[in-house]
Formats: sequence, structure tokens, C-alpha cells
Amino acid sequence: MRARHKPWADDFLQEHKQYVELNPELNKEEWSTVFQSPQPIQLEIGAGKGQFITGMAKQNQRINFIAIELVKSIIVSAVQKVADEQLDNVKLINYDANDLREIFATNEIDCIYLNFSDPWPKARHAKRRLTYRTFLQQYQDILKPGGEIIFKTDNRGLFEYSLTSFSQYGMIIEEVTLDLHELNDPTNVMTEYEEKFSAKGQPIYRCRARFNGCIS
Amino acid sequence: MRARHKPWADDFLQEHKQYVELNPELNKEEWSTVFQSPQPIQLEIGAGKGQFITGMAKQNQRINFIAIELVKSIIVSAVQKVADEQLDNVKLINYDANDLREIFATNEIDCIYLNFSDPWPKARHAKRRLTYRTFLQQYQDILKPGGEIIFKTDNRGLFEYSLTSFSQYGMIIEEVTLDLHELNDPTNVMTEYEEKFSAKGQPIYRCRARFNGCIS
Ligand SMILES: C[S@@+](CC[C@H](N)C(=O)[O-])C[C@H]1O[C@@H](n2cnc3c(N)ncnc32)[C@H](O)[C@@H]1O
Ligand SMILES: C[S@@+](CC[C@H](N)C(=O)[O-])C[C@H]1O[C@@H](n2cnc3c(N)ncnc32)[C@H](O)[C@@H]1O
Repeated sequence: MRARHKPWADDFLQEHKQYVELNPELNKEEWSTVFQSPQPIQLEIGAGKGQFITGMAKQNQRINFIAIELVKSIIVSAVQKVADEQLDNVKLINYDANDLREIFATNEIDCIYLNFSDPWPKARHAKRRLTYRTFLQQYQDILKPGGEIIFKTDNRGLFEYSLTSFSQYGMIIEEVTLDLHELNDPTNVMTEYEEKFSAKGQPIYRCRARFNGCIS
Repeated sequence: MRARHKPWADDFLQEHKQYVELNPELNKEEWSTVFQSPQPIQLEIGAGKGQFITGMAKQNQRINFIAIELVKSIIVSAVQKVADEQLDNVKLINYDANDLREIFATNEIDCIYLNFSDPWPKARHAKRRLTYRTFLQQYQDILKPGGEIIFKTDNRGLFEYSLTSFSQYGMIIEEVTLDLHELNDPTNVMTEYEEKFSAKGQPIYRCRARFNGCIS
């Protein structure tokens, strides 16, 4: 039987408190004080093993990053990477993105990254997609006005769905690319999944969408 | 020297007045009286040789279709197809889509099809793209409230651009598909370009976008 409680992972997170927020609710409205420098805060949801957030934090020292990952045994890999690099502009949270309002106040976040989110291809699971409108409502609440979502995926169905979901929610789609790697953008930081799927020759899709004052 | 005036084409259009509107300005506000039956009117812009409009008109007898094509020597092929099929629910217009307001009144059109529009890939030619905002303004004027644009193309750059152009104009993107033919939609009518490019294995993109009350 698979152990639900994972003492090794709990211990590991405890030992790396510098990079992990164990009680993120306590920081609500005060995230700017949690980091060494008060800087804009960018959030990644579903960070996996942390390659993206680590690369972004190294490349952008003047930005603070928070990464949320649901699965404890996965987030430990992210913690390890951030600790190895001694990045003081990253905090990791083992948390469920269903409850973002519990840990972030209105306007607290500058932008949100969604990378290779679980596609939930069946229509009856649409509510679980991180680009479903109930999630967009949360993102809108915690993002500052005009805040963006930057979304990457290899999954065609999820990408098609998400463009319409963003637009129908009233967001403005500011950029769409159907073959990100063709752009050769030197600032693009690859995620684990991005490396895996692009190595197989699959195109990577990206879009940037912004919340708008007007919701239809 | 290439003859600018093409008497053969002029004669041909004259001889097929039943299917061609030679003075479309005169029908402004009165298109519903031009057809045998007063039915919803759908418009195609840049109709080429007319395969799409002919197929649509056959498949949808309860809809009236108007197709606009700029190039006289191209539209004659469309006229020939419509005449061969004796379709009384199609009118063809040899006209420049830059001046749609001259020939259509507010709310006169039910939906607009753009099929494989010229891509104008250079940024400095963006204004010529049929999905540039000045064109969208015209479409909004002549479409009835909630009217849709249905756009198909094989051109990735034009598709990416058009999604953002629609959205930034304040339109709602209702459907996106990045591989139309995978859907096996039996109601899809192929255009000449669509047949050509899909035979080469290129994916066909389609989106439906709707004008919204709110423009940002
Ligand atoms: C397909 S993986 C992608 C991982 C990484 N972003 C990448 O691109 O390599 C999706 C990740 O999202 C996490 N995830 C899914 N739902 C979540 C939720 N509600 N809250 C936080 N993380 C979630 C999963 O545990 C998984 O690690
Ligand atoms: C690339 S072709 C596609 C033809 C057809 N729709 C198809 O899918 O096979 C584009 C067509 O749009 C026409 N066109 C371009 N600009 C136009 C304009 N401003 N007004 C009307 N037609 C235009 C061109 O003459 C050409 O026939």
C-alpha cells in the first residue's frame, strides 16, 4: 500500500524552510515582506519539478517568484533545485490551486504562469482545467489590474479550449504563438514537460491573456 | 502589356446578371428584396473561384449568400459555378472589401466568412489583412448584433495575428480549432485553397468570433 503520509518529504520541506512556505495562509497580504527585497511577485501554478521557476528566478533577479505545486513528492525536486542555486527570490508552496484566495490578497500578484497544465480532456472534467472560468475568477482576484496569464502547453485540445475560455471570460488575448520554439526567444525558460515534448518534435503553444475591466 | 480592361470578363458578367450584382451600391439596405426568398444573408469576402459559396448555397437553401471578390478574372469562375448549379440563393459581387459600408447597411448581414485571406506577412502590411481592425469595424457595422466571423486559413502567422486582433478589438472568441479536418465535420465546405493545402498535409485552422457590446 502506498503511504499517504510521506515523512521523508515532510522532513525535507521542514529542513528547507528558507525556500518553502509551510503555512502560506499566514503570508496573505504580506508576501512582499517575505522576500529579501520587495519586488514584483510572479506566480507559477502546477510547477512540477521546478525547472521553470528556477530558470526564471536566475534570469530575473529583480522579480520575486512563488511556485505552487499540489504533489508533495514532486515539489521536493523543485525545492532541491532552488536550494542548490541558493535563490532568495523564490518561495515554493505545496498547495492546491483551488484555494488561491486563502493565501493571496487582492492585487498581490503581478502575473501568473501556467505551464503544461493537466489537460483533463474529457468534457465532464472541464471544471478541473486550470483555465476553467472558476480558476480565472481566482486569478483575476489575486492579480493586480491588467495582470496577465502566460500559458504554455503542447496539448492542442487544452490550448484551443483555453483561448475560448479566456476570451469568453472577457480577457484580452494579447499574443498567440502556435510554434514557440520557432521564435528562438532567448528569454524563454523551458519546463521539464516542454523539453520532453519539443524533443519529440511536438510544437509548443503559448498565449498571453490579460484581464480586462469588462466582463461580458 | 497586360490589358487592364478585360472586355471578355465584363461581357461574361453582363450575361450572367441573374447571379452577379453589377451595381451593388443600389441594393444597400435592400438586399433582402434582391433574392427570391427573404432569408438570412451570409457574406463571404475574398471568395476566389467560388467553390465555398457554391457548396454552402447548395447545402443551405434556407440561407441567402453574397460573395465578394476583388479580381474580375477570378470571380468569373465563381459565376460559372453558380450558374452551372442555377443557385438562386447566391449573388456575386466584383468589389473591394475596403468599402463594404457603401453596399451594406447596418445589421444587414448575419455572418461573415473569411477563407484563406491573403496573409500579408510583413508587419508594415498589417493594415491590408482582412482581419485588421479597420476591417473589423466595417464588419461590426454591417453585421447584426451578435453576428459572427468564421475564419479559416492554413497560414499560421495570419491565424495567430487574427486571434489577437479579434480579441483586442473586443470580440469574443467562441471556437478555435487548430486542425479542422481532424474534426471530420460533415458540414464543412472546402474552399479551393483548403483542398490544395490540406492535400499537402498542412493543418487547417478555424475560429469563430463574435462582436460584443463592449469594446476595450
Ligand atoms: C503536467 S505537469 C507539468 C509540470 C511542469 N509545469 C512542467 O511544465 O514540466 C502538471 C503539474 O501541475 C500540478 N497540479 C495539478 N493540479 C494542481 C492544483 N490544483 N494545484 C497545484 N498544482 C497542481 C500537478 O501535480 C503536476 O505536477
Ligand atoms: C488566397 S485567395 C483565397 C480564395 C478562396 N477564399 C479560397 O479559400 O480558395 C484570396 C482571395 O481574396 C481576394 N481578395 C483579396 N483582397 C480583397 C479585397 N479587398 N476585397 C475582395 N476580395 C479580396 C483575392 O483576390 C483572392 O481571390
